[in-house]
Amino acid sequence: MRLDAPLSGESALIERIAARCVLPTHSGAVSLVRGIGDDTAVLQVGEQTLLWTADMLVEGVHFRLDWIDPASLGWKALAVNLSDIAAMGGVPVGALLSIALPPERTGDWLEAFLNGFLECAHAYDAALIGGDTNRAEQVAVDVSVLGRVAGAPVTRDGAAVGDWLMVTGALGGSRAGLEALLEGAWDTVDLTPHFRPAPRLQAGALAQAQGATAMMDLSDGLAADLPKLLRASGKGAIVYAERVPIHPVAQRWTQARGLDPLSFAIAGGEDYELLLAAPPAVGQRLLEQAPEATGAPLSVIGEVIAEPELWLQYPDGRRESFARMGWDHFAE
Amino acid sequence: MRLDAPLSGESALIERIAARCVLPTHSGAVSLVRGIGDDTAVLQVGEQTLLWTADMLVEGVHFRLDWIDPASLGWKALAVNLSDIAAMGGVPVGALLSIALPPERTGDWLEAFLNGFLECAHAYDAALIGGDTNRAEQVAVDVSVLGRVAGAPVTRDGAAVGDWLMVTGALGGSRAGLEALLEGAWDTVDLTPHFRPAPRLQAGALAQAQGATAMMDLSDGLAADLPKLLRASGKGAIVYAERVPIHPVAQRWTQARGLDPLSFAIAGGEDYELLLAAPPAVGQRLLEQAPEATGAPLSVIGEVIAEPELWLQYPDGRRESFARMGWDHFAE
Repeated sequence: MRLDAPLSGESALIERIAARCVLPTHSGAVSLVRGIGDDTAVLQVGEQTLLWTADMLVEGVHFRLDWIDPASLGWKALAVNLSDIAAMGGVPVGALLSIALPPERTGDWLEAFLNGFLECAHAYDAALIGGDTNRAEQVAVDVSVLGRVAGAPVTRDGAAVGDWLMVTGALGGSRAGLEALLEGAWDTVDLTPHFRPAPRLQAGALAQAQGATAMMDLSDGLAADLPKLLRASGKGAIVYAERVPIHPVAQRWTQARGLDPLSFAIAGGEDYELLLAAPPAVGQRLLEQAPEATGAPLSVIGEVIAEPELWLQYPDGRRESFARMGWDHFAE
Repeated sequence: MRLDAPLSGESALIERIAARCVLPTHSGAVSLVRGIGDDTAVLQVGEQTLLWTADMLVEGVHFRLDWIDPASLGWKALAVNLSDIAAMGGVPVGALLSIALPPERTGDWLEAFLNGFLECAHAYDAALIGGDTNRAEQVAVDVSVLGRVAGAPVTRDGAAVGDWLMVTGALGGSRAGLEALLEGAWDTVDLTPHFRPAPRLQAGALAQAQGATAMMDLSDGLAADLPKLLRASGKGAIVYAERVPIHPVAQRWTQARGLDPLSFAIAGGEDYELLLAAPPAVGQRLLEQAPEATGAPLSVIGEVIAEPELWLQYPDGRRESFARMGWDHFAE
């Protein structure tokens, strides 16, 4: 795919909003370093660099209440935001929770939701420090998280020619869970990757400390997210098909149905693994240190090239242009 | 009304969430000073005191799209958050906008919404610095705002016996607009107070600088909000009926219909004026300085007493207990 073509769908929408953003370089002692268009906004407050992000989950779009239990929804609502903090190399400070819900869900359902939210908060050392509740016909949850980072955050725009492209963990597990839910076969699959993603905070902090040049989290799938990193960096990439790590849940699901596991790993969304670029020497150190230091394996899946193209290369040398296969909320 | 009785509805819900909040006193160089239960959370970042809040507006609950134009909705979505910053005595830094909307509203409608949002941002020196867009059947908007304050923020819990109770501007104008919309008479009334509330940032900053002891913004109406301030402070109050400033829009609306204008001023929500407590000497200075320095008139409406009761006192000396007349999202 050409990476300098116009955007469509949600990406275009965000571009339109970004074009309207104002980013004053100084507002007294607090300055805004970076606004819309990366995983988080960046603020400089005296010596401290703060990260700030918000993510909304809407019933019927991001989740179905007959599928997900409230505790898992609470976990996920926070985890997807922590993943944005991880993608900048930061650690969380606290969260605000805005939740709209029908009156009949303000009892046990909300209690269970809060249990899941706080379980995630405790697991990653974040604090719930405020929020807003509202009545609505559909459940909608918006979480805003502040984090901090020691030194410079890792943004999307620093990838250089020759950098390795790397991902944490394995991809496609969440998509397999979604497929199982769609087929009504939820008892045949481990839904943990879909319901309770693990934000890669330790891996993100290690990559930041070691000198990764660009990083983002994989929320919409590699096929949709990698182009964002490459566009921001003004580069292209080759991805080696056989190196893309496939989640065992996706492996089993596709094998049983004669499907292509690679399509799950590339086009599946909501894995919340980290995608990063790093010079080979840095990448080598990360490969050695990550499993023990962060609990998350790392894989090299490709390399950054100068021409603004994104290629998927097979072991036999055949290349094809990456199709736009990721999830877009406004592209039906 | 007794102010030490158990809470119900939305207030009880927020109390339940508050009881689950964790407020670590230190998180590295960033410490959380205050969490849920005030207008904003408070963070200490080195020398800087930051304010952080989020407010969600949901279609069918807070607004109807056949009533409000998108530009006014954009203005209001930001203004209600800036009002929370004003209520702590702070100034805004920036905002994150999360918006869920149906695909057919991503064109001109969204453009007009952003125009209104940014008009408000420019008017009050806030910056839109990021956000999230999502598809949904209903429009839901959640805005998160960071602000800062020089010195200590004014919280809800500092009111002392003998303090004056004061409000900015005049009350009930938003309620009159809502009534007009409900009756289909929107061309007979000025809807500005309902659609485009003016956050009282200058008045809030002045009150903070001069030494107000407690402050909050009036989002749910005096009858619902004043008890929150008094509960937090562990005090009661007498409100003098004839001193409650009634908005001219409410005055005209109630006069034409033989209604009681005071009930609009006391029980109407969404005025986004500030309610504050101050020792008489501070109150006197504020009365003198506010109109010229902030453009907002100030009125003394009552005084703080020790017993946990809230009385409405008439000019003839008759007292009645404040009924709980404010707006509560979960009390139908």
